[in-house]
Amino acid sequence: MKILISNDDGYLAPGLLALADAMSKIAEVVVVAPERNRSGASNALTLDKPLSVSKAGDNVYFVDGTPSDCVHIALTGLLDYRPDLIVSGINQGQNMGDDTLYSGTVAAATEGFLFGIPAIAFSQAEKGWGFIDDAARFALNLVKHKLDDLHKPYLLNVNIPNCHYADIKGVQVTRLGRRHQSEPVIKSADPRGNPIYWIGPPGAAKDASEGTDFHAVAQGYVSVTPLQVDLTHTQQLLELKKVWQ
Amino acid sequence: MKILISNDDGYLAPGLLALADAMSKIAEVVVVAPERNRSGASNALTLDKPLSVSKAGDNVYFVDGTPSDCVHIALTGLLDYRPDLIVSGINQGQNMGDDTLYSGTVAAATEGFLFGIPAIAFSQAEKGWGFIDDAARFALNLVKHKLDDLHKPYLLNVNIPNCHYADIKGVQVTRLGRRHQSEPVIKSADPRGNPIYWIGPPGAAKDASEGTDFHAVAQGYVSVTPLQVDLTHTQQLLELKKVWQ
Amino acid sequence: MKILISNDDGYLAPGLLALADAMSKIAEVVVVAPERNRSGASNALTLDKPLSVSKAGDNVYFVDGTPSDCVHIALTGLLDYRPDLIVSGINQGQNMGDDTLYSGTVAAATEGFLFGIPAIAFSQAEKGWGFIDDAARFALNLVKHKLDDLHKPYLLNVNIPNCHYADIKGVQVTRLGRRHQSEPVIKSADPRGNPIYWIGPPGAAKDASEGTDFHAVAQGYVSVTPLQVDLTHTQQLLELKKVWQ
Amino acid sequence: MKILISNDDGYLAPGLLALADAMSKIAEVVVVAPERNRSGASNALTLDKPLSVSKAGDNVYFVDGTPSDCVHIALTGLLDYRPDLIVSGINQGQNMGDDTLYSGTVAAATEGFLFGIPAIAFSQAEKGWGFIDDAARFALNLVKHKLDDLHKPYLLNVNIPNCHYADIKGVQVTRLGRRHQSEPVIKSADPRGNPIYWIGPPGAAKDASEGTDFHAVAQGYVSVTPLQVDLTHTQQLLELKKVWQ
Repeated sequence: MKILISNDDGYLAPGLLALADAMSKIAEVVVVAPERNRSGASNALTLDKPLSVSKAGDNVYFVDGTPSDCVHIALTGLLDYRPDLIVSGINQGQNMGDDTLYSGTVAAATEGFLFGIPAIAFSQAEKGWGFIDDAARFALNLVKHKLDDLHKPYLLNVNIPNCHYADIKGVQVTRLGRRHQSEPVIKSADPRGNPIYWIGPPGAAKDASEGTDFHAVAQGYVSVTPLQVDLTHTQQLLELKKVWQ
Repeated sequence: MKILISNDDGYLAPGLLALADAMSKIAEVVVVAPERNRSGASNALTLDKPLSVSKAGDNVYFVDGTPSDCVHIALTGLLDYRPDLIVSGINQGQNMGDDTLYSGTVAAATEGFLFGIPAIAFSQAEKGWGFIDDAARFALNLVKHKLDDLHKPYLLNVNIPNCHYADIKGVQVTRLGRRHQSEPVIKSADPRGNPIYWIGPPGAAKDASEGTDFHAVAQGYVSVTPLQVDLTHTQQLLELKKVWQ
Repeated sequence: MKILISNDDGYLAPGLLALADAMSKIAEVVVVAPERNRSGASNALTLDKPLSVSKAGDNVYFVDGTPSDCVHIALTGLLDYRPDLIVSGINQGQNMGDDTLYSGTVAAATEGFLFGIPAIAFSQAEKGWGFIDDAARFALNLVKHKLDDLHKPYLLNVNIPNCHYADIKGVQVTRLGRRHQSEPVIKSADPRGNPIYWIGPPGAAKDASEGTDFHAVAQGYVSVTPLQVDLTHTQQLLELKKVWQ
Repeated sequence: MKILISNDDGYLAPGLLALADAMSKIAEVVVVAPERNRSGASNALTLDKPLSVSKAGDNVYFVDGTPSDCVHIALTGLLDYRPDLIVSGINQGQNMGDDTLYSGTVAAATEGFLFGIPAIAFSQAEKGWGFIDDAARFALNLVKHKLDDLHKPYLLNVNIPNCHYADIKGVQVTRLGRRHQSEPVIKSADPRGNPIYWIGPPGAAKDASEGTDFHAVAQGYVSVTPLQVDLTHTQQLLELKKVWQ
């Protein structure tokens, strides 16, 4: 098996190193990841400048671009083979509910999925890299034992509690929850007195009811949400067709 | 009515100017848009640095950030009221099918929708700003006459053919089509001999059958696709629950 | 006469508009300036990505690069003639003493000088664009009447007090003063609690004695400092040769 | 002795690692260097956004800024002591003649010098890191044995031939040479057909006569040029005073 690994925290992030280490036990692994932290990059592709690819070691490359750029370049020019699986992460901090729209970790996986390759985005619920090796061990386990039942290509969003491997209660298949709207922007001033604005933290969970990713992780489970990428609002489509046409 | 306008081509782009001009006929208009072209920015939010907001004229602001940053700042700190509608664009070039995942134009509208405000992303099918005033006139018409039947908040993705207003055949409510995978990355070298990579153009339409945005625009219609933002793959969710739990 | 105009505040800055307006009374003027504010850019050249040149109007171009990039591109590829003079500014705020090492305004002029073309950097002593038309009128006057006595190419650094044209006391030819070391970096934290550092303001004048640019401007004069670009420390060179060789 | 090390190739560059390794034999060493390659940054300071400092190991920090930012932050906020010496590099490729104006390697040293601390910029004549350990050994030797005769603070620009340590012919104290003007900008097009411009390579040596850095290195010597930072053109100053005043 050949696995392509990327992330949005940068190619030197502990979460990526742990994930690469785990995956290398069952597969030939190549890392193509951003040169530096690109959290919040979403599916951004770099269209206005060319990208550089640098080799940081055997089968480890970094790119001066976004997570989507990394996977895109790997699949359409850098690698001379087609990976069997793409894994992204392990992200420092959760990607649940509406976060998935903004997440570079999810975007890296999505980019692979759009090329028809199964892809999984892994995130840890809490920041700080606590229990990262346990999270990587769980990721390995999921890849080894749980994927045979899935139609290919699949796109999974996985959030893992920060705890000992033995304390993970199991897996729950979830839908994405919803967040309340974000906290207000934080107004401040630079030292020259000019006003500046920091994007505030995401809102608290709004729909964290049973069945959601928020609920599963809060209960100590790993949340696995199967994703798709068609944003069409099918129900509204039908209604509008009746009214407008 | 109060309308917030943004885009991803930058606050000086002809498409934004035409759209603002049109909307100002029926509403109080405020522009909060990126300082420069941020095409391909997707839903990226700037989390690692603060943002500056500059005033370029009455009710015209530009931000050194992404389209999502602009709408986010406008709604959570800059404006002292809540707009009734957010319009984004008019983008230079189409945003159809899988493009919606990468588009900054769609992302600006999506950001507003996530705050519970109706939002519309407008794009022209072809680049070059041909017939931009006709497109803006159509956008105005849509906003004036077509939105009463929609549940709020709604999120619409609108693609307009580049032609005289009179030559637009009408509106079709569509689903997003699909594209073939992108063209390969273009390998080149900088003048110092270092290899560089350009992200290639998007793939041709793969699913452009009747009912899709690709089909509608190809036939000379304006395509209107209602969007939602929940990426959960509901069908696969049910299957996985049976197998895994 | 043909004059190339650039700056570091961006092609839309009031200081550049005033300067271009003034110079157009005596010369054919072309503007090639940064797309956005690049203060503090020093002589930075963009080597790791290509640059785009956009046309903003008749003989007005902006570049997504540094001030040095703008002049470099203008002289080696964009213009099909060689300008007789390069003027940079009018900068928002003074460039005196050690500031000249960091200033993008001075760098734009320096880039021209390195290509053998006379060049002048103009700055206003205070920020805020007060009396900018008076400053531009003075700049015009200098260019019209004062330059015949200079060996070409020359490189002048000009700082103008913010006051009515009639209140400018005259011109003083000065040496660069010296500043005390900068104020300490300002430690702060972003909203996520991560430490951040803002570069502090420059230090106060250390050598502002008679004959310096600081002194001239403080007395209400325009300071004109002729510059050169050879950083060799000639005296120390001689000493070291004796000791080491 | 306490030595601060920076560079412009980024904190992971082989030249910095070799230099830090060498200096650690005679001093307590701390590295504060850019997160990524910032060649050509000149003395640029980042004024429009705050900077982050990350710890990459014991006494190794990287900053998301320019070389000047790194030294500035180290001296005015990060370090709780004042280093005795600042060394920058070893740069990949020469910094001779007019290069010194653009070089981030030289700028990092200059920043320290402006704070009153002795500083040395080291560069290798050729790119590719060939004989980097020999260059580092030479740098160590220079720091150990050659600096006592210098007035403090001093600012030295050192260029080292890429060869075995034993093959270095010795040291020559030099003045900066001059280059011919740069090669023209290289016009090209991006894959979408938009014109792009690459800054061309520097010009060939124009003044490479005996006594210059170019000449010394071409003869197999290490070139050491003492630098100063006062750009005042003293001779022209005197002439202008006579004419204008």
